[in-house]
Amino acid sequence: MELNNLSLTSRFVDCIQAANPLASREAVHMAKMGLVDFIASCHAASGDISVQKLKKHLDMDGGAGPVPVIGQNMKAAPLHAALLNGFIGHALDFDDVHSDVRGHPSTVILPVLFSLAASRSTAKALNGQRLLASYIIGVEVMARLGQAIGKDHYAKGWHNTGTLGTVAAAVAGAYFLGMNHEEMRQVIGLAATQASGLRVQFGTEAKPLHAGLASQAALQSILFTEYQLSSTAAGLDQELGFFAVYGQGEPYAAPFLLDHWQHGSWKIANPGLWFKLYPFCSAGYHGADAALRLVANYPIDPERINQINIIFPQGGDAALVQHTPLTGEQGRFSIEYIVALILLHYPLSIGNFQAQPIAEEVRMFMSKIKRRYSDDIQPVPDSIPKGRFTIVEIITDRNEIWSERVDAPKGSALQPLTDEEMQYKLKICLQNDQTSRRILQYVEDLENYPVSGLLSLL
Amino acid sequence: MELNNLSLTSRFVDCIQAANPLASREAVHMAKMGLVDFIASCHAASGDISVQKLKKHLDMDGGAGPVPVIGQNMKAAPLHAALLNGFIGHALDFDDVHSDVRGHPSTVILPVLFSLAASRSTAKALNGQRLLASYIIGVEVMARLGQAIGKDHYAKGWHNTGTLGTVAAAVAGAYFLGMNHEEMRQVIGLAATQASGLRVQFGTEAKPLHAGLASQAALQSILFTEYQLSSTAAGLDQELGFFAVYGQGEPYAAPFLLDHWQHGSWKIANPGLWFKLYPFCSAGYHGADAALRLVANYPIDPERINQINIIFPQGGDAALVQHTPLTGEQGRFSIEYIVALILLHYPLSIGNFQAQPIAEEVRMFMSKIKRRYSDDIQPVPDSIPKGRFTIVEIITDRNEIWSERVDAPKGSALQPLTDEEMQYKLKICLQNDQTSRRILQYVEDLENYPVSGLLSLL
Repeated sequence: MELNNLSLTSRFVDCIQAANPLASREAVHMAKMGLVDFIASCHAASGDISVQKLKKHLDMDGGAGPVPVIGQNMKAAPLHAALLNGFIGHALDFDDVHSDVRGHPSTVILPVLFSLAASRSTAKALNGQRLLASYIIGVEVMARLGQAIGKDHYAKGWHNTGTLGTVAAAVAGAYFLGMNHEEMRQVIGLAATQASGLRVQFGTEAKPLHAGLASQAALQSILFTEYQLSSTAAGLDQELGFFAVYGQGEPYAAPFLLDHWQHGSWKIANPGLWFKLYPFCSAGYHGADAALRLVANYPIDPERINQINIIFPQGGDAALVQHTPLTGEQGRFSIEYIVALILLHYPLSIGNFQAQPIAEEVRMFMSKIKRRYSDDIQPVPDSIPKGRFTIVEIITDRNEIWSERVDAPKGSALQPLTDEEMQYKLKICLQNDQTSRRILQYVEDLENYPVSGLLSLL
Repeated sequence: MELNNLSLTSRFVDCIQAANPLASREAVHMAKMGLVDFIASCHAASGDISVQKLKKHLDMDGGAGPVPVIGQNMKAAPLHAALLNGFIGHALDFDDVHSDVRGHPSTVILPVLFSLAASRSTAKALNGQRLLASYIIGVEVMARLGQAIGKDHYAKGWHNTGTLGTVAAAVAGAYFLGMNHEEMRQVIGLAATQASGLRVQFGTEAKPLHAGLASQAALQSILFTEYQLSSTAAGLDQELGFFAVYGQGEPYAAPFLLDHWQHGSWKIANPGLWFKLYPFCSAGYHGADAALRLVANYPIDPERINQINIIFPQGGDAALVQHTPLTGEQGRFSIEYIVALILLHYPLSIGNFQAQPIAEEVRMFMSKIKRRYSDDIQPVPDSIPKGRFTIVEIITDRNEIWSERVDAPKGSALQPLTDEEMQYKLKICLQNDQTSRRILQYVEDLENYPVSGLLSLL
């Protein structure tokens, strides 16, 4: 065995290639939920102005091809489709998140798999089983990268969806094509060297663009490897590798990448993908659920509220970068906006999180809301994400204090969506009962069908 | 004036848009030298196997279009051409470098300008003067970014050509198109969020790929802005911006970006682009020149050499990542290989730095070479890059010690190529006297001609 085979990248690839994701019924079930959720999230954005803007890209560099652009009733070339589908899936911030990732896995991984499945005619590309296995692997890799890169990566300003997503989606695609050990290592090196995405873009259309660009870069990594362009086979390793530059170094990262592959537990199911019922940033979910409970449990009159305190652990609101948003789109990253909508009885609809000015009434009300941070309040052990909670506390003009605390929000593993709720999400996003039913049937039996059948419905 | 106009990104754009690069004859002359050098470097790689591999990309996503792929007698769509021309220009590591950048400006900037010039029919795109001005601006921006990002950026593992190049080439392209203040800020944000490239790829074909990917990402930033996708206008600013994440923060960066724009001195000329006579990494140039002086000044018999010490300041060999290269391609980043070739009287030809195994004789000889580092030896004040020197010291079997020291190598501002040497480089790279002469004529008079004429000769 050559020395390089002992490198972190090499051992990680060994783990990936030795795993058997289809042996876990739970993982396969979650993969099917994730497919339905991603398709629903794409369709929810089908009329969004941002999607219409990015479609102009199909006129550049010959965008025509065989891959469906989801919800747009059109097809595109593989790299163009990866860019667009990644963008569309994340356009409303309505797609799944994963607490180990601190980002959005499916909207980066699935576009790569769809582009490969639609543009290759090999048996592997046509196989639904292979698609499910590759998706489970992709989420596994992205969640492990998320743990291995450490919390400081996100805190420093990286957008994990872009950085980790590029590598994870590249691995998923390489797995889908059945690439060998050496090829997968090169794909990882080429993806690692393209990883990018800054949180300074949160609240702009560049945020979903990160997902599309990560899909595009992942697919490029696969293509460059197929062209036999040389790459380091040690992209994750040592002093100059991915973890040294973007994270805390190889020694910290290694156990997260290499341990517990034999346990039969998969990250896609545990702690699991977290599916959204509302189209805004998941960091606002705890606060939204707490506000919804306040509305359900107390006789709230907005005019009688003097002050609202929203209490986070230190850093728990890092993603909520907008304190005084001017538009619904910026409001996706504003706990002030989200809680104000709920307390004023506005619906958490797609329409209220678009690039439209925020109503004066809501903007005025937001000024009553203060963020606070506590080091004294203990997170519960099974909070999601770990260490997170949000408390919403209302102080009325009679000095009543009403408060609700949420540690694991709706849609996360401890409050999962039921199959029926997911079917409902698909139905309202598609606005077409018949196609919605056919997609559900296809996904349910995906092991027994070619992927092309599913793709033809998107 | 709104508050944002006082942001670093905004003030930087103000400086860029107020500048008058064509007022400097020296800068215009260097831009013309740079154009010739880039074209020569591309043609030198025209038969390189790596270029043939990446050309397969033109079959993906409809690569056909109006932009010349330099030295390949073919045309491609704008993004494809940016990827390919950036790659081709850097494929042999024969293109210019800049000591403030710690990387390669022209091979990232010029492909973006060529793609725009060849695919737009506006008056600006057709104007040779505008091309020269945009190129000077691009190098200025990249050099200032290089100073502003600090030395640690490269030391940590980033490849400045990729990271800084993405932003600089995007600015150059935005300037070329005459974008307004707000558009240029958005372009900078979109480029900053795509910046990537790791030094762990040095010695592989992914290194020149970084230049191509940076050109591609820069052009994408311009296109996304034209589609009116929203982006932060503050990509370089504050705690989450480019300098906080990739560098040492905004306060360190600001003076390098904002000061001395009125001096009439341009980075393209001072300290200036550094043009190469040999096809390997510029970090090996000091050592190569020292070895060439040894061969010229001493009666060297390779068999009588016991040991060779190559002495750098601490970190001065960071780019020379290959200590025991196996191929000429890896040898582009190996001072051992470069000095061995010279002392064994092999030519520093393109052929000796290709993906071919290194001759046994050379590999054996390399084992006599040791790298050493000195904190005691003082760099001279006008060393290029600042703080750099290399000493090559030979110890013979009779204990003779012969040594030569180089502080500013051939091709750099203190030992510049003459016009005649540049013409000679173009001639040997093109292997076509007539085309070579026409290119020189065209570049010499570029202010008075449309760019299309030059592009038709590439």
